[in-house]
Amino acid sequence: MSGEFDTLMMARALQLARRGRYSAMPNPHVGCVLVREGAVVGEGFTQPAGGDHAEIQALRQAGDQARGATAYVTLEPCSHHGKTGPCALALIEAGVSRVVAAIEDPNPLVAGNGFARLRESGVIVDSGLLADEARAVIPGFIARMTRGRGRVRIKLAMSLDGRTAMASGDSQWITGPAARADVQRLRAMSCAVVTGVGTVLADDCSLSVRAAETGLPEAQAQLASVRQPLRVVLDSNLRTPPAAKVLDATAPSLLCHAIDAPVPAAIAAAGVELLPLARDQKGLDLAALLQHLNQRQSNEILVECGPHLAGAFLSAGLVDELIVYMAPVLMGSDAQPLLHLPLQKMAEKVPLKIADMRRVGEDWRITAVPSLRA
Amino acid sequence: MSGEFDTLMMARALQLARRGRYSAMPNPHVGCVLVREGAVVGEGFTQPAGGDHAEIQALRQAGDQARGATAYVTLEPCSHHGKTGPCALALIEAGVSRVVAAIEDPNPLVAGNGFARLRESGVIVDSGLLADEARAVIPGFIARMTRGRGRVRIKLAMSLDGRTAMASGDSQWITGPAARADVQRLRAMSCAVVTGVGTVLADDCSLSVRAAETGLPEAQAQLASVRQPLRVVLDSNLRTPPAAKVLDATAPSLLCHAIDAPVPAAIAAAGVELLPLARDQKGLDLAALLQHLNQRQSNEILVECGPHLAGAFLSAGLVDELIVYMAPVLMGSDAQPLLHLPLQKMAEKVPLKIADMRRVGEDWRITAVPSLRA
Repeated sequence: MSGEFDTLMMARALQLARRGRYSAMPNPHVGCVLVREGAVVGEGFTQPAGGDHAEIQALRQAGDQARGATAYVTLEPCSHHGKTGPCALALIEAGVSRVVAAIEDPNPLVAGNGFARLRESGVIVDSGLLADEARAVIPGFIARMTRGRGRVRIKLAMSLDGRTAMASGDSQWITGPAARADVQRLRAMSCAVVTGVGTVLADDCSLSVRAAETGLPEAQAQLASVRQPLRVVLDSNLRTPPAAKVLDATAPSLLCHAIDAPVPAAIAAAGVELLPLARDQKGLDLAALLQHLNQRQSNEILVECGPHLAGAFLSAGLVDELIVYMAPVLMGSDAQPLLHLPLQKMAEKVPLKIADMRRVGEDWRITAVPSLRA
Repeated sequence: MSGEFDTLMMARALQLARRGRYSAMPNPHVGCVLVREGAVVGEGFTQPAGGDHAEIQALRQAGDQARGATAYVTLEPCSHHGKTGPCALALIEAGVSRVVAAIEDPNPLVAGNGFARLRESGVIVDSGLLADEARAVIPGFIARMTRGRGRVRIKLAMSLDGRTAMASGDSQWITGPAARADVQRLRAMSCAVVTGVGTVLADDCSLSVRAAETGLPEAQAQLASVRQPLRVVLDSNLRTPPAAKVLDATAPSLLCHAIDAPVPAAIAAAGVELLPLARDQKGLDLAALLQHLNQRQSNEILVECGPHLAGAFLSAGLVDELIVYMAPVLMGSDAQPLLHLPLQKMAEKVPLKIADMRRVGEDWRITAVPSLRA
């Protein structure tokens, strides 16, 4: 069924899919290649929300050449009317004779409907080619569809001896410019960026994407600038100053506070979006926050915070990945820990799987998957 | 002068040199290849102390074929009578017509004498081929010859969040079997292994080389078992129990204590070698210890200790390399630090150069060079 040529074309479709990772959300970023008589006649990837899906782009490029062509798609073509018409129908109407898909739609309520519609119209459908690779392109979307919660990644920066700031709080410039550009790209891939009020008060960080600082090539940087992630501040007692950069107009903001905390007049007057949450022993109800972000279709959630909030997310079993930038420096034993995580016995230690380790400028980036899950 | 063939032969000589790294000390481990008419006629590497030098081994293998041959050696042939006769003389007597050496003898008092002796007898001498590579094979010997102190490496095992033990002291099995075998190889390469009495009291470690646990191939494991490193315990007040494994008969031991500390009768009776040292604000005078180890011709010194002694070595500027085994686990913010190093300001942080980063089993080994030096 699927030979070497099919694999090559699907690999190309996956390459195209990744082009949409900064701009397609909340849609999954999909790639499509149309091939007729061994020649590529159309290519496409998911455009920013409201724009064309990958298949429509490819069909437009192919024009009449689509008749009798094979479509390679990284995800099952949609069969429902969303902001755009269903892609399955468009493929049928263009006369595509075969569809090779990497994976089914991960949403269990719709999975297989696109394939069924294609098959009903006589289109040959093959599914499962480079499936693992295709899932790895859209992990956040899959997580949201299958478990009702997007992918949560915590970004941390530490010294080699596992410290994030001096005891005084001084933490500027632990990592170098390449790591900071990498963080900009992480933000650009994210639907929401979560932080705590402590970080806001200490750093007055904006948490927005500055496309020029992503280090991306022009075309990608442009896609990274079409939208901004939702900035989420966990602030039980509403201590965020109304003039904080994280509430400015560069990106949307959501201020989460304890349900029993009075809303200061200045915050109310500033028109900041507020989300009241229940308190728990460590702060606010993080699971409820993630539920809210799921309703807002957040596939990728990046947490950029201090050791306490990071420890709370981890202890709650809500972390899918730790992304740790390790700077080649020692900050000493009085400095602040990577995560506030008060364990007493070796048996309580949290096993990790190191998924990736790579040099980023002078720093090293460690991607680790914790085994402690809710 | 030096073409591609010369480079190839020198690379082979360096390969041979490394075979002596577990057994040649206190001599530098050297490799030698004898080539006549484009064919290798003899090979050798430094044998355990008292045995043949690399050149003598290669000459013995070559026999009459040495006449008119070129000798590739990773270090200038010696010109003095030590435990064996001078190699320069042996090369001359065997009729070798050309010597290609990677580097001069690093001992400034003898450097060039071997070359001079060869040249006086009409042998062509070329020096400097793959010099950096040759220096990297014997860094400890070079350090000892040029600065009067062998190479000091601190081995540490930590969790990803930079912790070495729980607050209770529990630290067993942070790293996996591959990392522990790697440590056995580090010990086997070392002339001295240094620890503190705290580690002795907590773990009753033997600190000896167990050749079978090095994971080395048979021939190498055998070389790793011909000698044991000197085990050095820093024990200001002589708290080491006479029955401690570190004082057993498997390897020589040296117990360092404060000059004003009374020697317990049981220790005196056990015949343990003692080294009285001055006290300084952090414990014992580490520079004086290293001076003593220099007199004992220790090229490679491995420190395996807890955070306090590691911090003291580092603060004293006496560390050439940190070798950190990082286990894929979080031990939490109450656990013990990597090094006791009480810094207050970001300006005091210790910059490192990451010289190597590699996976060892499930763990990662980070080799870092601190820039804080005496």
